Amino acid sequence: MIRIGILGYGNLGRGVECAIKQNDDLELKAVFTRRAPGTVTILTEGVPVYAAADAAKHADEIDVLILCGGSATDLPEQTPQFTSLFNVIDSFDTHKRIPEHFDRVDQAAKQGGKVAIISVGWDPGLFSLNRMYANAILPNGVDYTFWGKGVSQGHSDAIRRVKGVKDGKQYTIPVEHALEEVRSGKNPDLTTREKHTRECFVVAEEGADLAQIEQDIQTMPNYFDEYDTTVHFITEEELKKNHSGIPHGGFVIRSGKTGWNLENNHIIEYRLKLDSNPEFTSSVLVAYARAAYRLNQEGQTGCKTVFDIAPAYLSPKSGEELRKTML
Amino acid sequence: MIRIGILGYGNLGRGVECAIKQNDDLELKAVFTRRAPGTVTILTEGVPVYAAADAAKHADEIDVLILCGGSATDLPEQTPQFTSLFNVIDSFDTHKRIPEHFDRVDQAAKQGGKVAIISVGWDPGLFSLNRMYANAILPNGVDYTFWGKGVSQGHSDAIRRVKGVKDGKQYTIPVEHALEEVRSGKNPDLTTREKHTRECFVVAEEGADLAQIEQDIQTMPNYFDEYDTTVHFITEEELKKNHSGIPHGGFVIRSGKTGWNLENNHIIEYRLKLDSNPEFTSSVLVAYARAAYRLNQEGQTGCKTVFDIAPAYLSPKSGEELRKTML
Repeated sequence: MIRIGILGYGNLGRGVECAIKQNDDLELKAVFTRRAPGTVTILTEGVPVYAAADAAKHADEIDVLILCGGSATDLPEQTPQFTSLFNVIDSFDTHKRIPEHFDRVDQAAKQGGKVAIISVGWDPGLFSLNRMYANAILPNGVDYTFWGKGVSQGHSDAIRRVKGVKDGKQYTIPVEHALEEVRSGKNPDLTTREKHTRECFVVAEEGADLAQIEQDIQTMPNYFDEYDTTVHFITEEELKKNHSGIPHGGFVIRSGKTGWNLENNHIIEYRLKLDSNPEFTSSVLVAYARAAYRLNQEGQTGCKTVFDIAPAYLSPKSGEELRKTML
Repeated sequence: MIRIGILGYGNLGRGVECAIKQNDDLELKAVFTRRAPGTVTILTEGVPVYAAADAAKHADEIDVLILCGGSATDLPEQTPQFTSLFNVIDSFDTHKRIPEHFDRVDQAAKQGGKVAIISVGWDPGLFSLNRMYANAILPNGVDYTFWGKGVSQGHSDAIRRVKGVKDGKQYTIPVEHALEEVRSGKNPDLTTREKHTRECFVVAEEGADLAQIEQDIQTMPNYFDEYDTTVHFITEEELKKNHSGIPHGGFVIRSGKTGWNLENNHIIEYRLKLDSNPEFTSSVLVAYARAAYRLNQEGQTGCKTVFDIAPAYLSPKSGEELRKTML
């Protein structure tokens, strides 16, 4: 059994807990929290909740620690800190800052003799893998990434800051026509507006000016002004009933040419359609936790990304079983 | 520069030649053929064509030999034979016989101190990778593979053996409704007939009994009797003009559940839409040739499959570049 620890018990941490339950070779050993441990109730019976500050004391009980904090402030500190003591997995998703995060984590992991796998999830993560495989196979081509249909947390937060808005949720929706053009091999140049639309479900405060709210949302710079945005006003009950989920997904497509005179076109498309963004991300984290453990058992150390991990390390099956059943 | 040799110059060999042209770090060094070398004209200027029997003499000039023979009789002999002298890539695609092929190749590659990567292409190959990743991430789920729309060589051959048929081509077509059901997360049990239809374009001999041909095709055991099959009679010119390509593709979909009570569903879908089946397969072979060379440079030996190769080995970019541009 591979003994897993979870650091941070929000949506992602709970998702990791659920994913561990589905994997017979993994065992949840402890949850670490920055809240008062006594106030945190987890789903798995008999598993202790400890203070994050006490994690070092439990280093011997944990094979891989899955870091479930945020990318803005938690992970830049936590991943280097904890990989000096644990093999770790994180879902660091600030694309631009990945190189510096990698360097800091790599140094700490090597000093600690541990393996850290960073930026695990679906984007970065599975989408990155598909971009990379497709680029290696079709060097002459164009990449497209579409997101959705799904809830954007950042855009939902932006709606809630608009005057007169009590609550709200925003969906990012890929434009079907643009997808079809890409799939046709035409390699279109697509503007921001042509790729995605945005749909908002808004609960207004009593007596609020609905037309003003709609305009404030649709013209909001950076968030909405470059998109065709639809605003629906609904009741608080409707929001709870129909929009409490956290679905997401998207498409990574590469359109590329082969042949002596580039006469043939090929489309490689990868699509995710997820009922729960955090639970799916957690499922990816858990598969890579298995890989981190195995790599460290083989004597490897340092920081890795999904690009550096041979696929077989993610599976509980042996090489022989994989060749027999999946190849 | 990584020096590549091609063994066997048919559709696949020519595809490899075209793919090498698109990769700046790869160089075609020689083509080996079982035909009389003087009768084989290749596209790349200044590259020699040698007799396959003389390959051993050129072992020092080649970093990776890409084997472009067939799986029925060529590769079971060629791959073990040539990997004692060369790092090799093959596209062995008889799924059931992969385990025994692996064992024989592994032994020969280890003895020769070389790396062999077998069963490279899209199925087996990229489809296998996607099955494996998706299974590792969503342990609780169902797998679906659909093929097409594309030309099935075996079914086209079968048509041509029917009495009164001069020439013909068969397309395998996935049933759109079945795909939609799978994408909906319903996890349907689908019969053979529900998953694919078959469409045949037939050139009949003069005076042949068309109704009889249609019936002979539609009732042919193993090939057509379990499918809804459409037969179109066309002229030889139409066949040449509209059906001379070798398109193919397909879908690998996993539908899986997460959550404490498996309350959330997720769809992972991988799709290929290929204008030229052999050219795309060749492009995959060439990317894995890069990996074989690098692994052998690191001192690795033995037989590998796509499951054993970390994605970064396929790309000409450095780890740093990949993290910066693709993660």
